[in-house]
Amino acid sequence: MNVHAKPQKNSVKTAPETVTTGPIIGSRKIYVAPPEHPEMRVPFREVQLTTDAEPPVRIYDPSGPFTETDVKIDLNQGLPQPRRAWLDALGFETVPGRIVTAADNGHISADQLVPACPAERPILEARPGQMATQYEFARAGIITPEMIYVAHRENLGRAAMLEGARERHADGESFGASVPEFVTPEFVRSEIARGRAIIPANINHPELEPMAIGRNFLVKINANIGNSAVTSGAAEEVEKLVWAIRWGADTVMDLSTGRNIHNIRSWILRNSPVPIGTVPIYQALEKVGGDPIKLDWEVFKDTLIEQAEQGVDYFTIHAGVRLPYVPLTASRVTGIVSRGGSIMARWCLAHHKESFLYERFDEICDIMRKYDVSFSLGDGLRPGSIADANDRAQFAELETLGELTKVAWDKGCQVMIEGPGHVPMHKIKENMDKQLRECGEAPFYTLGPLTTDIAPGYDHITSGIGAAMIGWFGCAMLCYVTPKEHLGLPDRDDVKVGVITYRIAAHAADLAKGHPAAKIRDDAVSRARFDFRWEDQFNLALDPDTARSFHDETLPKDAHKVAHFCSMCGPKFCSMKITQDLRAEVLAMGDNERAALEAMAGDQAAAQIEQQKLGMAAKSEEFLKKGGNLYLPAAE
Amino acid sequence: MNVHAKPQKNSVKTAPETVTTGPIIGSRKIYVAPPEHPEMRVPFREVQLTTDAEPPVRIYDPSGPFTETDVKIDLNQGLPQPRRAWLDALGFETVPGRIVTAADNGHISADQLVPACPAERPILEARPGQMATQYEFARAGIITPEMIYVAHRENLGRAAMLEGARERHADGESFGASVPEFVTPEFVRSEIARGRAIIPANINHPELEPMAIGRNFLVKINANIGNSAVTSGAAEEVEKLVWAIRWGADTVMDLSTGRNIHNIRSWILRNSPVPIGTVPIYQALEKVGGDPIKLDWEVFKDTLIEQAEQGVDYFTIHAGVRLPYVPLTASRVTGIVSRGGSIMARWCLAHHKESFLYERFDEICDIMRKYDVSFSLGDGLRPGSIADANDRAQFAELETLGELTKVAWDKGCQVMIEGPGHVPMHKIKENMDKQLRECGEAPFYTLGPLTTDIAPGYDHITSGIGAAMIGWFGCAMLCYVTPKEHLGLPDRDDVKVGVITYRIAAHAADLAKGHPAAKIRDDAVSRARFDFRWEDQFNLALDPDTARSFHDETLPKDAHKVAHFCSMCGPKFCSMKITQDLRAEVLAMGDNERAALEAMAGDQAAAQIEQQKLGMAAKSEEFLKKGGNLYLPAAE
Repeated sequence: MNVHAKPQKNSVKTAPETVTTGPIIGSRKIYVAPPEHPEMRVPFREVQLTTDAEPPVRIYDPSGPFTETDVKIDLNQGLPQPRRAWLDALGFETVPGRIVTAADNGHISADQLVPACPAERPILEARPGQMATQYEFARAGIITPEMIYVAHRENLGRAAMLEGARERHADGESFGASVPEFVTPEFVRSEIARGRAIIPANINHPELEPMAIGRNFLVKINANIGNSAVTSGAAEEVEKLVWAIRWGADTVMDLSTGRNIHNIRSWILRNSPVPIGTVPIYQALEKVGGDPIKLDWEVFKDTLIEQAEQGVDYFTIHAGVRLPYVPLTASRVTGIVSRGGSIMARWCLAHHKESFLYERFDEICDIMRKYDVSFSLGDGLRPGSIADANDRAQFAELETLGELTKVAWDKGCQVMIEGPGHVPMHKIKENMDKQLRECGEAPFYTLGPLTTDIAPGYDHITSGIGAAMIGWFGCAMLCYVTPKEHLGLPDRDDVKVGVITYRIAAHAADLAKGHPAAKIRDDAVSRARFDFRWEDQFNLALDPDTARSFHDETLPKDAHKVAHFCSMCGPKFCSMKITQDLRAEVLAMGDNERAALEAMAGDQAAAQIEQQKLGMAAKSEEFLKKGGNLYLPAAE
Repeated sequence: MNVHAKPQKNSVKTAPETVTTGPIIGSRKIYVAPPEHPEMRVPFREVQLTTDAEPPVRIYDPSGPFTETDVKIDLNQGLPQPRRAWLDALGFETVPGRIVTAADNGHISADQLVPACPAERPILEARPGQMATQYEFARAGIITPEMIYVAHRENLGRAAMLEGARERHADGESFGASVPEFVTPEFVRSEIARGRAIIPANINHPELEPMAIGRNFLVKINANIGNSAVTSGAAEEVEKLVWAIRWGADTVMDLSTGRNIHNIRSWILRNSPVPIGTVPIYQALEKVGGDPIKLDWEVFKDTLIEQAEQGVDYFTIHAGVRLPYVPLTASRVTGIVSRGGSIMARWCLAHHKESFLYERFDEICDIMRKYDVSFSLGDGLRPGSIADANDRAQFAELETLGELTKVAWDKGCQVMIEGPGHVPMHKIKENMDKQLRECGEAPFYTLGPLTTDIAPGYDHITSGIGAAMIGWFGCAMLCYVTPKEHLGLPDRDDVKVGVITYRIAAHAADLAKGHPAAKIRDDAVSRARFDFRWEDQFNLALDPDTARSFHDETLPKDAHKVAHFCSMCGPKFCSMKITQDLRAEVLAMGDNERAALEAMAGDQAAAQIEQQKLGMAAKSEEFLKKGGNLYLPAAE
């Protein structure tokens, strides 16, 4: 166990050495086989409580083998390959693959070159006519191993956990989602078949632990990593991935630009248990020296194949940025803020031609289908400020993304749709509703949205608010925002804060949607809190380390972790302590006495209900008299 | 200017010395007189921009004289008294006041006693039959100086600012609120007269800069301070206040318990420009040695008078915790989590008697009216966990608070209502709607609510989500939660993070409600961002220091603050840069060319609208066929 290992600095020329490993304190990794599939090992994190009265709490766990106890990780070997046998069974063609060129790594000099990851995998592609994507299998009525795995993963073993719970049923408002009580492999298949969910799973990514993105599954989050202008070493980049998934990122986008990116990507993919997404236009732009005008279909296509062969699971493709939409952005407060969007807009305008991504969309589908790379249709015209939210440019692009979704489905591809950005609270639901309508319920994947522009330095919070809301309304995956957004590059702490904030948003959304298992963890925390089981409260927290250290700042002694009070109120003023005494007293009451008191409460409530009914009737009459204006102040 | 001065530690026995003073970097304090009231000095913070093309941005500023340039603060003298002349003009009776007893300061030994603040103020109370409260004046049709002051303060000088703005009108969904385009003194009066707003303003708090709490005004936030079990020195306590209002707390609750609290409260009040709230039952409990069962009306009444004479502006009174409701909490996951609520529940059950706060409510009103202390009707049965949200105990109490609101109004008092606590997103609106209905639109003042229980250490975020939402729905004031909630006592950094998070929530709510001036600041930030005016972006931020330091971590050189790119993408990949070039290109287009492109976009949109109409008609027919079930998945 090596929890606090830091990646080595200046490791560009040396082989990568170490990443963070070992369980999150207070948890242990478990693997559980789905019914009738004893060979499958579906990962969970389990928190054992200090009381015998409650079962352990099982938590969804995207962190991969890195959080196993006493795990040995060798980045050179890459991770174990849970999908290997499944992929082998499908008989894909093994191809020599595209030849890696100097341009792929940004023409870096030999002494600065990061070697590729030595872990060898066959490069697979679908034979002509051969089914390759989860969408194609689903449409054909075939349940894949990935679907079985995902079903078990999403269930969180809730049958057993709900057994011990006081309340079996969650409530919630799901805005038309269809979250089932239990997830079956057939349910996963049907969701994928109707385009309502995806399992991003490139056939060249055997290390993947499959996961689903769709509004009838747990809300997922994505974290971005990347080297930006200055190249980092491979171990540093893998550590960014490991760190993000440790705290709960479900997918990771590698937004690297500059040098060594092909080789570093190989280290990331061979060591990633989560789907990896990229924006291929970034690398294509590098290949033409950074000038958007020099981009063309050939260099883009070459980049798609390059990255698909490496195993990238989803591509952001900004095919909705069409020539006629570009002028719509001219009067915006913040113009075009998507990098990919601005690159394509520049290209369209300079050539005065329709986007080659739009025009060649069929061909892009054909390439991506062969490897089952999922589409993440990019929102190149997303608003970059409150002022530009829900404007004509944004929605024109969204309508085009809806059109392209149907094309991609016809071609057999899996699709999700990217969304904004910066949106005030009252305009969030319109985004979700329009996306569902235009894109036939394909999963929505939004960046935030930020609900105000006035808090640079705290945009994980401005956007966490919007993310929780849009997650509730039906968004399937939330792309995190760190405190450094708009200001600088996130460091390790920023990444952790961003991931935890988005886990909060996703979980708050699951609760509000009425996800059957979401409340189990909240209730376990609350019972631990009420019972002064401090260690359980820490261990069940999204971030046990921070919870524990905050507690210890004020009350560091070990004895206080079993104390029946805390630092906020001290022993005398503790409401939890007083209320425990109370509860004992109420429970010790005679039945008659308690019933009499409760009847008093009930009578009062009943009397008030009567009053209200009278009031409501009067109000209703008044309402009709005034012409039925829905926006009268409530007191009138 | 002494921005980074820290309060002296271990200052219990010495006179207080220093608190944080000086403007927030990049801002200056200004005082502006309302029309026709040249003697009034209404405070604002103004951010001067680096461009001549835009007017300075005026910001609501609760920080008081402490943020003036070169201000000299002498805590012994107390602050200037903007209300002195107004209060003198009313001819209240000056009374000798209640005699301070040893019990008021917790029977502390002489050598540990913090001396009272030497700033002398007359102790005022209303003569029998004399009007004293803002509510009474408002009902009598009288516009008070406080109302004039508040009207000007709420307007933010927006007439001038909107002059220069590109878009004059905000949009929004206010859920039945009636936010006016401009706030007039008469509007303030009418809002107070109908109970929909309060100006907490004890006649013994002449240092107050008046402010309004109500859903048709800017959403306000409260920060809690307090010494808890271990006594702090007076300067330390005043510094907590100064620090909280520096970052934007609109009111401050002093939740101190233990020793020296009477004397420390005198330092706080004489040096507070914001309303101070307290929970008198805490001090009453101290006076009876900490045993709830020993509480009685006399000691409580004595405490009310003690604190009212000192100038406390609002009291939390848990008069809704009635005997019959106590058993309703016995089966909760977290019982009673309000300190005041658990104290009163214990009292009721031990004596098997109805709460003396409920039974003596008339008398409480009579006392509070004499000083214009506003009610903050406490939610002693608020839920302490997601599991307990919106349960019978909570709502039974809320109904009683509605009944008491009407009593308090009849008695001439100002009233607001406290609310939860822990509520999942889908149950938040029900809280707001029920509060408006039960309490006749009296202002709602909620703690969060926290939208999940699983993130101790991050409860400023779990609750900031709920706070933004309930603020949007109509909540008038949001009580902050710091990262240390549930775990320990907040330090200086925690208080700042809590306040900034809640400023985000309040502002996001103002934006979503369509507050006419809220968007001005967002747009100014966004334009600064798009124009690479880094200094303006920092200075307009809620926390300029953090924004600047985050930027400098990655790009520390001064040159980068005028650079036309940032560290995230580097010069080559900057979407803002590309889009600026684009904008120039679009603007340079011939009119015909641009019109042709925009027509293409329009035509496509029109075609799609047609398609949609067809789709909608078909869908509508299908919908009716299926029996009109509203919860069909959207894609069917």
